[in-house]
Amino acid sequence: MSETDRNPTHPTHPTDVSVLGLGAMGSALASALLDAGRSVTVWNRTPGRATDLVGRGADAAHSAQEAVLASPVIIACLLKRSSVEETLDPVAGELRGRTLVNVTTTTPNESRELAAWAAEHGIDYLDGAIMAVPSMIGSRSGQIFYSGSRAAYEALLPMLEVWATSEFHGEDAGRASLVDLAMLSGMYQMFTGFFHGAAMVAAMGMSASEFATRQAPFLAAMTEELGSYAKVIDGGDYTVASQQSLDFSDLTHIVRASEEEGVDPAPIAGVQALISGQIAAGHGAEGFARLYESLANR
Amino acid sequence: MSETDRNPTHPTHPTDVSVLGLGAMGSALASALLDAGRSVTVWNRTPGRATDLVGRGADAAHSAQEAVLASPVIIACLLKRSSVEETLDPVAGELRGRTLVNVTTTTPNESRELAAWAAEHGIDYLDGAIMAVPSMIGSRSGQIFYSGSRAAYEALLPMLEVWATSEFHGEDAGRASLVDLAMLSGMYQMFTGFFHGAAMVAAMGMSASEFATRQAPFLAAMTEELGSYAKVIDGGDYTVASQQSLDFSDLTHIVRASEEEGVDPAPIAGVQALISGQIAAGHGAEGFARLYESLANR
Ligand SMILES: NC(=O)c1ccc[n+]([C@@H]2O[C@H](COP(=O)([O-])OP(=O)(O)OC[C@H]3O[C@@H](n4cnc5c(N)ncnc54)[C@H](OP(=O)(O)O)[C@@H]3O)[C@@H](O)[C@H]2O)c1
Ligand SMILES: NC(=O)c1ccc[n+]([C@@H]2O[C@H](COP(=O)([O-])OP(=O)(O)OC[C@H]3O[C@@H](n4cnc5c(N)ncnc54)[C@H](OP(=O)(O)O)[C@@H]3O)[C@@H](O)[C@H]2O)c1
Repeated sequence: MSETDRNPTHPTHPTDVSVLGLGAMGSALASALLDAGRSVTVWNRTPGRATDLVGRGADAAHSAQEAVLASPVIIACLLKRSSVEETLDPVAGELRGRTLVNVTTTTPNESRELAAWAAEHGIDYLDGAIMAVPSMIGSRSGQIFYSGSRAAYEALLPMLEVWATSEFHGEDAGRASLVDLAMLSGMYQMFTGFFHGAAMVAAMGMSASEFATRQAPFLAAMTEELGSYAKVIDGGDYTVASQQSLDFSDLTHIVRASEEEGVDPAPIAGVQALISGQIAAGHGAEGFARLYESLANR
Repeated sequence: MSETDRNPTHPTHPTDVSVLGLGAMGSALASALLDAGRSVTVWNRTPGRATDLVGRGADAAHSAQEAVLASPVIIACLLKRSSVEETLDPVAGELRGRTLVNVTTTTPNESRELAAWAAEHGIDYLDGAIMAVPSMIGSRSGQIFYSGSRAAYEALLPMLEVWATSEFHGEDAGRASLVDLAMLSGMYQMFTGFFHGAAMVAAMGMSASEFATRQAPFLAAMTEELGSYAKVIDGGDYTVASQQSLDFSDLTHIVRASEEEGVDPAPIAGVQALISGQIAAGHGAEGFARLYESLANR
């Protein structure tokens, strides 16, 4: 296909979409777009990472500027916020009038700052937060949250759905990232809890794999409790009769068991410290969900 | 039924089993035994908690001593280790030759000490750790771990299975409690992670209930990763190519997002501190499961 054939509706744009950043995730995104029949321009700071994609039909740009000029839609999938700035600040002029979808991991405030920068330069900005590993891109098993320009989200949805299940979280560009990082916070704490439990039973010779066969279904079943805790949190009354009180169990037995077996109690001692704080503040008769109040911004 | 009819094989024992402690859990255990057609003697330090059970056929003992003398099998379901000592030390003589099943929550070392005390007094000792709330007792949805006397476990299994799925963890009396507390450690950390995530998104007006509808299925799905992490831990080689390295993500973005929204980052900052420790020790190129080494007793 000639360049003009490929994108007849945008004669000045040889391709549909340009992907900046061909790390593990950027490559997966570009690859899924090619699989879906899109014409794609790719660019990576360090040369050589485009070879496979070019073999499958992508155009390789020699500079970020060339990549930006090649398509009406630009995907940035770089390491972090500073990489986005270094790459995009010099081509702000070329981005004017185009749509920038930034799926680089940033904090909510960083996303908001990038959205403000984009607005200043006449760039339609959509922020994305990827809840998937690269191997999940192109299946529907991953999720990507978006926030920022609703018009951009709606126009691009058919393309975005190529990657993962998409969800729009509103025009405050920071929201996608906030939901993403909140979800990941829970996940990393669950993983750390598993490591801590595995370290405890290792003292009696149980392998981590054997512990995982018990812990995984147990935790999966216990996720059903999150809804009940949430109701208590949303209701704001933590004196729930059916729940054990903080006084009843301040987790001393778990902290001590960990110490007895020579396992660092830090992860569970952190939970206990929150309980102790609530007891000291006079909330010992309330339920475990009370810990939310130790953390929240009230 | 007359007392002798009830337990014809133990003419000196009016009932099959005595339950000491009629709190929420002890009452549930006694109730399930009655449902299963066992003859039960019950005792509680503070009088008045036996009324319902007596109405359903239980014998109420006036003292712990009377309760111990009434049955060949004694269940202790008291608040904590010191409650067990206060209750059982004075009746050690009467317990001689009987089987004591202690399902009071204790640390592994406390269970071991109670087992040693029982051995000294000629008492067959089985330690139990209950992975269930009272409402689950009598269904097969709960689990109870046991360790200590294998003979007692095998002889009592038909009775124990009335309460929950039973699992024997070996003759070291501390093991049941260790596995139990390790499982609970993971659970409490997962719950705390959820509270932390819920506090983060509250800043953008999302209710805890809405967050729970996202977080619960996500965490349930992520429990499938525990087996892969466990393999890495058991293999001892944390330089796993398919996993992101600690250098790649030290969770700074989550800690910062939490701070930006005015949410106490302590729970996730604790995880980050473990990562920082591993990076400082030269393991930044290794995967997340490396955190296990920060905790384990090596
Ligand atoms: N991998 C995942 O599982 C996953 C999941 C969710 C979100 N994400 C997010 O997706 C983004 C990319 O992740 P990845 O897995 O693809 O990372 P990666 O494999 O390490 O790739 C990083 C990419 O960023 C580029 N880069 C770094 N600094 C740059 C700079 N100053 N200027 C221009 N380019 C720069 C790199 O180019 P060079 O080749 O020149 O170094 C490379 O293309 C990150 O924000 C990550 O948090 C990843
Ligand atoms: N409830 C659960 O969900 C659950 C789950 C797993 C394990 N467990 C464990 O099961 C055990 C009992 O829990 P529970 O829920 O039944 O607690 P609970 O409702 O608070 O009842 C505590 C029981 O212990 C008795 N007790 C306390 N101190 C005593 C002492 N010094 N001497 C004699 N009796 C004493 C109380 O008698 P009084 O009426 O005289 O105070 C009461 O019968 C605990 O070790 C708990 O950790 C409970």
